[in-house]
Amino acid sequence: MKYKIGLIGCGTVGQGFLDILDKKAETLKKNLGFEAKVVAISDKLKGSLLAPRGLEIKKVLGLLSQGKTLADYAPGKGQKDSALGPIEMIERCDADIIAELTYTDIKTGEPATSYIKKALQTGKHVVTSNKGPAALHYPELRDLAKKKKVYFRIEGTVMSGTPVFTLTENGFAGNTVKEIKGILNGTTNFILSKMELDNMDYREALALAQKLGYAEADPTADVEGFDALAKIVILSNVILGGNIRPSDATREGITGISRDMVLAAKQEGFRYKLIAQTIREGTKITAGVSPQKLSLSDPLAGVMGAQNALTFDLDLLGKVTIQGPGAGKTETGHAILQDILAIHRDLR
Amino acid sequence: MKYKIGLIGCGTVGQGFLDILDKKAETLKKNLGFEAKVVAISDKLKGSLLAPRGLEIKKVLGLLSQGKTLADYAPGKGQKDSALGPIEMIERCDADIIAELTYTDIKTGEPATSYIKKALQTGKHVVTSNKGPAALHYPELRDLAKKKKVYFRIEGTVMSGTPVFTLTENGFAGNTVKEIKGILNGTTNFILSKMELDNMDYREALALAQKLGYAEADPTADVEGFDALAKIVILSNVILGGNIRPSDATREGITGISRDMVLAAKQEGFRYKLIAQTIREGTKITAGVSPQKLSLSDPLAGVMGAQNALTFDLDLLGKVTIQGPGAGKTETGHAILQDILAIHRDLR
Repeated sequence: MKYKIGLIGCGTVGQGFLDILDKKAETLKKNLGFEAKVVAISDKLKGSLLAPRGLEIKKVLGLLSQGKTLADYAPGKGQKDSALGPIEMIERCDADIIAELTYTDIKTGEPATSYIKKALQTGKHVVTSNKGPAALHYPELRDLAKKKKVYFRIEGTVMSGTPVFTLTENGFAGNTVKEIKGILNGTTNFILSKMELDNMDYREALALAQKLGYAEADPTADVEGFDALAKIVILSNVILGGNIRPSDATREGITGISRDMVLAAKQEGFRYKLIAQTIREGTKITAGVSPQKLSLSDPLAGVMGAQNALTFDLDLLGKVTIQGPGAGKTETGHAILQDILAIHRDLR
Repeated sequence: MKYKIGLIGCGTVGQGFLDILDKKAETLKKNLGFEAKVVAISDKLKGSLLAPRGLEIKKVLGLLSQGKTLADYAPGKGQKDSALGPIEMIERCDADIIAELTYTDIKTGEPATSYIKKALQTGKHVVTSNKGPAALHYPELRDLAKKKKVYFRIEGTVMSGTPVFTLTENGFAGNTVKEIKGILNGTTNFILSKMELDNMDYREALALAQKLGYAEADPTADVEGFDALAKIVILSNVILGGNIRPSDATREGITGISRDMVLAAKQEGFRYKLIAQTIREGTKITAGVSPQKLSLSDPLAGVMGAQNALTFDLDLLGKVTIQGPGAGKTETGHAILQDILAIHRDLR
């Protein structure tokens, strides 16, 4: 099948996805019978373009890598499209699938949630790596998608392209998931690893994380646990079938963890990790984020640096842990592709 | 959809599968629209039964748990079916899916391979946890299944019910898998763990593994690496697209690893593991099993006891590791269910 894809947001993840789509076009066609063209892009900084016949991906990526905008794609033509905002683009383009890849606002989920709603309402599948809408409005968006008979998929919101939702749907079908526990924030895991392995204090480790691009200038979302909290709320609602909001979960970051505490734990054979955890008992969901001292025999204890990992506790299979990248341009672009391929597997 | 399933072999795995099928019937119907009945069972020790209308699973499991045979299921009726061998059962039953669950012969793959061929030739899907046919004849059986337009699935052959093939197909689609490396034999991993953590020598650790039922009276298949070898050959052929035989791979077990070597490695910050590894370079596959000293930062180093784990090296996603159970009645029964549900997802 040949899909028509529209991108709302064309920053790092969008360009990572386009690059994969271009490089893997032949493989995907040959192995999976999957073909796609990009019929619309709308980006606040890089301009907008409607192209019902499909864009030349290489040309788009070339322009953006040179700091140019989509207005330079076909000068003279399509200029009027550059004035279209995301909502108008979603309405006017004839995409089957909208990839919502704008910036994350964990507090409001906007404007991404409005874009997603518009896309679902106009009968388009939506795939996104944006944690805001997924953490704040998943049950509502899922129900809207169901009503409109389209897909709403969010693989990239947790552990970037490392399969989490795809794994659960396909590999754990029929299981009751009792508990999900993991390391969902690479920045804090990197900081804790550096404190233990390289004897740094918190400030030094944070400064290094900032220098390497793992932490933002304002590291609050990571170090105070907001990022991991959003992800564990998503897992609670998507996999455990809950309907909780971030304010229903407890949250404690790593700013209270000193080098002395890390080294004392090490002496006792333990290791500090920022653990996100959600437990289902009957219909009750208990979710939270907090620093925990793990025994070194815990599969999560060995997860060092910026890696992420999740342990699922399943009624039939017991404990299964998946470890992989938690961020990155290609990794999150991979998540977008996987969501689209999941739709393809169901529709083909 | 409602599937008709035939079981060839009804030992531990078969009974584990039947138990799951019975307990999860309602969940599977409600969540996935999946229904199944068991229309045939053939077992060398427990007898045979054809039941086009479907067997009462609870009754079958009750009889077998009391040491009775299928001849006691409906005395007087169906007695003549008890004389049917597996091949005749496969021919005569009207199953959509044959679950091949007889004993593993890694050297010949028989009689399981003949059963699988017969099932595929008569247009039935086949799911199996039997390593023999998968390690020795996968390319041929896959091609036969393709020709007959049916499925041949083998999730339970590697890491029991921990998703390996399902994960790769669904979560890594579009990736080139460059290397697969892992701990695929729980017995040897248990022995090495005991040698390091509890200071046992090899003989003591092996005796404990035998006492706990992890190792057979003749432990050769595990400790000399034959079991792990069969599994890495399967991964080479199924996931890396190879066409190798066990004799094409190198093999070294753990019998040459002494407690002194294990403890010396520990002093240096390393840990011995029996590692199965397969690497693809172009069309060339290099596969083997050998004890390796892993750095403690390797995700496989933290896998202790009877657990299994695999690290996939992917061109788009980098390294992803999955860790979970590698054996067990319910765990392998889970694999059989997952293979059947994978068929259901494609056909529904």
